[in-house]
Amino acid sequence: MIIQIQKNATEQEVKKISASVQSMGYSFNNIKTQFARYLICIGKKEIDLREIGFLSGVADVFKVSDAYKLTSTKWKVGKTAVDIGGGIRIGNGEFQIMAGPCSIESEEQIVSTIEHLKANGIKIMRGGVYKPRSSPYSFRGLGMDGLKLWYKLASESNIKIITEVMQVSQIEEMHDYVDIFQVGARNSQNFNLLDELGKVDKPILLKRGMSGTIEELLQSAEYVFSNGNEKIILCERGIRTYETSYRNTMDINAITILKDKSHLPVVADPSHGIGVRKYVDKIALASIMAGADGVIMEVHECPQKAFSDGQQTLDYGQSKDLIDKMGKARELVK
Amino acid sequence: MIIQIQKNATEQEVKKISASVQSMGYSFNNIKTQFARYLICIGKKEIDLREIGFLSGVADVFKVSDAYKLTSTKWKVGKTAVDIGGGIRIGNGEFQIMAGPCSIESEEQIVSTIEHLKANGIKIMRGGVYKPRSSPYSFRGLGMDGLKLWYKLASESNIKIITEVMQVSQIEEMHDYVDIFQVGARNSQNFNLLDELGKVDKPILLKRGMSGTIEELLQSAEYVFSNGNEKIILCERGIRTYETSYRNTMDINAITILKDKSHLPVVADPSHGIGVRKYVDKIALASIMAGADGVIMEVHECPQKAFSDGQQTLDYGQSKDLIDKMGKARELVK
Amino acid sequence: MIIQIQKNATEQEVKKISASVQSMGYSFNNIKTQFARYLICIGKKEIDLREIGFLSGVADVFKVSDAYKLTSTKWKVGKTAVDIGGGIRIGNGEFQIMAGPCSIESEEQIVSTIEHLKANGIKIMRGGVYKPRSSPYSFRGLGMDGLKLWYKLASESNIKIITEVMQVSQIEEMHDYVDIFQVGARNSQNFNLLDELGKVDKPILLKRGMSGTIEELLQSAEYVFSNGNEKIILCERGIRTYETSYRNTMDINAITILKDKSHLPVVADPSHGIGVRKYVDKIALASIMAGADGVIMEVHECPQKAFSDGQQTLDYGQSKDLIDKMGKARELVK
Amino acid sequence: MIIQIQKNATEQEVKKISASVQSMGYSFNNIKTQFARYLICIGKKEIDLREIGFLSGVADVFKVSDAYKLTSTKWKVGKTAVDIGGGIRIGNGEFQIMAGPCSIESEEQIVSTIEHLKANGIKIMRGGVYKPRSSPYSFRGLGMDGLKLWYKLASESNIKIITEVMQVSQIEEMHDYVDIFQVGARNSQNFNLLDELGKVDKPILLKRGMSGTIEELLQSAEYVFSNGNEKIILCERGIRTYETSYRNTMDINAITILKDKSHLPVVADPSHGIGVRKYVDKIALASIMAGADGVIMEVHECPQKAFSDGQQTLDYGQSKDLIDKMGKARELVK
Repeated sequence: MIIQIQKNATEQEVKKISASVQSMGYSFNNIKTQFARYLICIGKKEIDLREIGFLSGVADVFKVSDAYKLTSTKWKVGKTAVDIGGGIRIGNGEFQIMAGPCSIESEEQIVSTIEHLKANGIKIMRGGVYKPRSSPYSFRGLGMDGLKLWYKLASESNIKIITEVMQVSQIEEMHDYVDIFQVGARNSQNFNLLDELGKVDKPILLKRGMSGTIEELLQSAEYVFSNGNEKIILCERGIRTYETSYRNTMDINAITILKDKSHLPVVADPSHGIGVRKYVDKIALASIMAGADGVIMEVHECPQKAFSDGQQTLDYGQSKDLIDKMGKARELVK
Repeated sequence: MIIQIQKNATEQEVKKISASVQSMGYSFNNIKTQFARYLICIGKKEIDLREIGFLSGVADVFKVSDAYKLTSTKWKVGKTAVDIGGGIRIGNGEFQIMAGPCSIESEEQIVSTIEHLKANGIKIMRGGVYKPRSSPYSFRGLGMDGLKLWYKLASESNIKIITEVMQVSQIEEMHDYVDIFQVGARNSQNFNLLDELGKVDKPILLKRGMSGTIEELLQSAEYVFSNGNEKIILCERGIRTYETSYRNTMDINAITILKDKSHLPVVADPSHGIGVRKYVDKIALASIMAGADGVIMEVHECPQKAFSDGQQTLDYGQSKDLIDKMGKARELVK
Repeated sequence: MIIQIQKNATEQEVKKISASVQSMGYSFNNIKTQFARYLICIGKKEIDLREIGFLSGVADVFKVSDAYKLTSTKWKVGKTAVDIGGGIRIGNGEFQIMAGPCSIESEEQIVSTIEHLKANGIKIMRGGVYKPRSSPYSFRGLGMDGLKLWYKLASESNIKIITEVMQVSQIEEMHDYVDIFQVGARNSQNFNLLDELGKVDKPILLKRGMSGTIEELLQSAEYVFSNGNEKIILCERGIRTYETSYRNTMDINAITILKDKSHLPVVADPSHGIGVRKYVDKIALASIMAGADGVIMEVHECPQKAFSDGQQTLDYGQSKDLIDKMGKARELVK
Repeated sequence: MIIQIQKNATEQEVKKISASVQSMGYSFNNIKTQFARYLICIGKKEIDLREIGFLSGVADVFKVSDAYKLTSTKWKVGKTAVDIGGGIRIGNGEFQIMAGPCSIESEEQIVSTIEHLKANGIKIMRGGVYKPRSSPYSFRGLGMDGLKLWYKLASESNIKIITEVMQVSQIEEMHDYVDIFQVGARNSQNFNLLDELGKVDKPILLKRGMSGTIEELLQSAEYVFSNGNEKIILCERGIRTYETSYRNTMDINAITILKDKSHLPVVADPSHGIGVRKYVDKIALASIMAGADGVIMEVHECPQKAFSDGQQTLDYGQSKDLIDKMGKARELVK
């Protein structure tokens, strides 16, 4: 059960509501977000919702049987648009493309990418400065120096940036140089990281785990939400299966289902999904048909020279073509 | 290596070509299809293709390193359109929808479905008369009586029919009452069945196995092709993964890859793929973006009363809506 | 619900029982096996079993809610031993090893393998004469000539043989030259084949599908059983997963669960399971701990020269070592 | 390439070795562990190892082409025994059982579990004080207070303890109250956590990810090793597949392969693996046959009352039985 508290409710009223809940044999979690205050009540007894609804200070009350609560459409029927700043929004009908290299490599690269984005109407640039790598002997990114330079150049051009945060201690140092914090597939159930990102006032893009279920992704989002941050973007990036003729099985089905089960915006990552340059465009377009509110994709001035192997990375020409096609596909599903 | 023999080559010439191939340490398979004659040559030595190309009687020669040969784009670069009869073709730019119930249930149902198809410009009706069922105690279909009635009614209305054949002994009895033979996921590697369907002069729709790889599907198609039947349609119908929030993981990626690796047409089956009625439309549209040449879908006059549980089955209204949307999506990818 | 009919029941009595079942709103399947006669009754209403139990001609009656009925331990609590002939039995405490080459290749090989088996107390020889191959261009086995020779030599040495049957039409021609019919992973849901094998009076070894569930395997066994053949041996041979450092994920868990859910004997196939010679012994021993009633394994006089690649095949020395170890492991779990 | 530096090598010598490596076009990582000093050299050119081997200060040099280096048997052929303190070792022929509840719940429980362990000769107690939970609304463990009490009681009884660490900030506060740090499946690729645990002088038990590959597990171990901590124990705990008749597919194959590819000890977790109480014993015994150096299992004084659902948890009687059986199984594989 979710109880939304009225904006102007007194502490006295909240205490009384809490006491009522407890007297019914329920435990509760007291949750404050940027936008509202909730009690998430966990228990098994049947309750007459009206008994709660009539209490002073209650704005709304709903029964949500899913394991995820505040992220569920059973709680919030309308779609959420996440505000990224500067009038840029994603979700609830607003579509965003996020493009850029796998890793931020140099100032020249940043400048050239920003130019490419501006020329094509793209408002958000992606790129890694801390890279999770399977092997400890691989390049792990430029770190904070790279991030500061990137943020400076991007904000001068009114481009928002999204980059991956890998651990709690990085949140604070990265905070002022990031527009969207990305949580990677390997950290999809790093609950301490999710807890802390719930206390931040910036949007979080949360990737599905390498073999995470749809329900687990929504529960991970619930960690962020229940810690106070409602600005969450979900991301499908392919799952592990037995098939080896592509990199991951991009699960287009998940996009459709996430859009149905949750009010949060959903972004597709076809680059890490199918992972083969020449197929990225078709999978991006398919994702839009399935309901995606955005696409995040790898673009590089010279994919063959990218730090990462770049097999999934588009060059500027391919990127431009795909952006055009995505525009037309969006017309169809509006 | 594939050697295509000239249409008017003499037996003498073919023998000479074969002898040359053997003298190079290669074994060969002599293959005659409806359209052409080939030698598929298997061996490991490096060969100068020109030595073969110059022989009298050789129309063309190609090196194909894939495990599948005649179904590969390395052999045939242009796309294949499969002729279903009555001027209806699928592939190489021609798109077909196949719609109908899971199982054929009654004359009334056949009549009503045909009406629905005609009203919406659909030319192929699907339906099962022999049903593979996990449990031996389940309904297994109306059999030949149902098929004969169905074929009669359909052909009177210029509607083509596609239905599943489950074993070799059924091919002959079904042959005159079928326009497309369907091979189900469970028979995707029933090699004896594939061998025999290779000797039939009707199109074969071959479904990917429940956890079949893309390469295995193409090798299964190679069985049909190498036995003489070039009229093959591939079908993606979802694979088995750990995710349980839908029925199968419809592998949209496979559509894109099959279209790239093979010249054969590819059909999407979103009904058995995602398996949830309210999501079928989005997955059908996504499949078109990924490159599908057709969609096969379940439609029933009253899905709740279908023999199979019908959870993935559209009613006529939903079907009409989706057909309209698919038309628009096709415009986009042409 | 399963009703076992008394051996000496009259047709009159059976009719009366059937009528009672129908009057309760149940449909039924009339099943005769080598050993008994049953009515499998399918319906949803709650029934007082005593009403049936008191009818004349009823030997026993049980409620079985599983999708599989006669193969379930809910029906038959004691374990089944399958009689292979010549006093050789498998299951209910009796353990058998089945060893031999992937494909039968020559008379010399047969003779040499039989010698190896006899020297090590093994009573059942495995080998393929019809081989399912992914590619139509691969060797498909020696066929009936090889089988006849093999059967002659084996029966002269009191060795039983197990070999794969791939299609209905082969059953009759193979019948007199086979002691156990094997159904391969690719045919695990070839229901027509299962139906026909249910009418045969020889044991059937039924392999789990390449990505078959445990429940599907038991339902496939139910096809054989409900057609009249109770002599069924189940076989775990590895499933498809994302892991690539071995051939298949040998699912040792399945052995334990099959032994719990079904009364039928369960055999492990570590050769096709893990698929790497040097690991076969450990997986064979693990399977015995998990409850396997037998092990089927590939042995070849010279694995490097086997028709199949032979990477999972033991040589005679490795085979002898493993047979000794399996003997000791069996002592532990008795 | 791995270069082990002599214990008494001078800095001068190390510099010279590094310079030689660089001059060959290789990059290198300078690694100091508790036991030795290494240069891990990454490059693609063919090198004559003798050129390095003859340099002063080099103890040993090996080419290791795997993505994991120091954890590979290609580097260290003999098996590693990890010292847990108090003369307790695991690996290289020494076998350990780790038993206890899922979560530490109370003082009474700790006392009762320790008694059970001592009575059965078990030297290591498992239990969680920080629990990773899919839902933010679930119980997350007793935290540091619980840990301190537990450690006090355990060390008074000469029982070592193993418990999960979930984030970098916990390492320091937990350090003095832990004998083995456990890294859970969800953190198997939390590289920052692995980096920091590499700087700790306590053994690390590293669980395979929920759908982690065997290679990824070894690479994660490489993170710990290359940061300085050689005391690593690997753990197989079941992977995600499509099968639903048990909790996870306990991958017994992985135990055999890890033991072959790495010198590190491998522990089996049948409780979280198959996840069903009545099957835990068979899977534990199978794991020993596959080569496991230890078993970690859940035991609870009253499994039905455990905080976690306890479906995989043994009671004391079942635990005692299994410990006896494991003793006998160990005799067999010695």
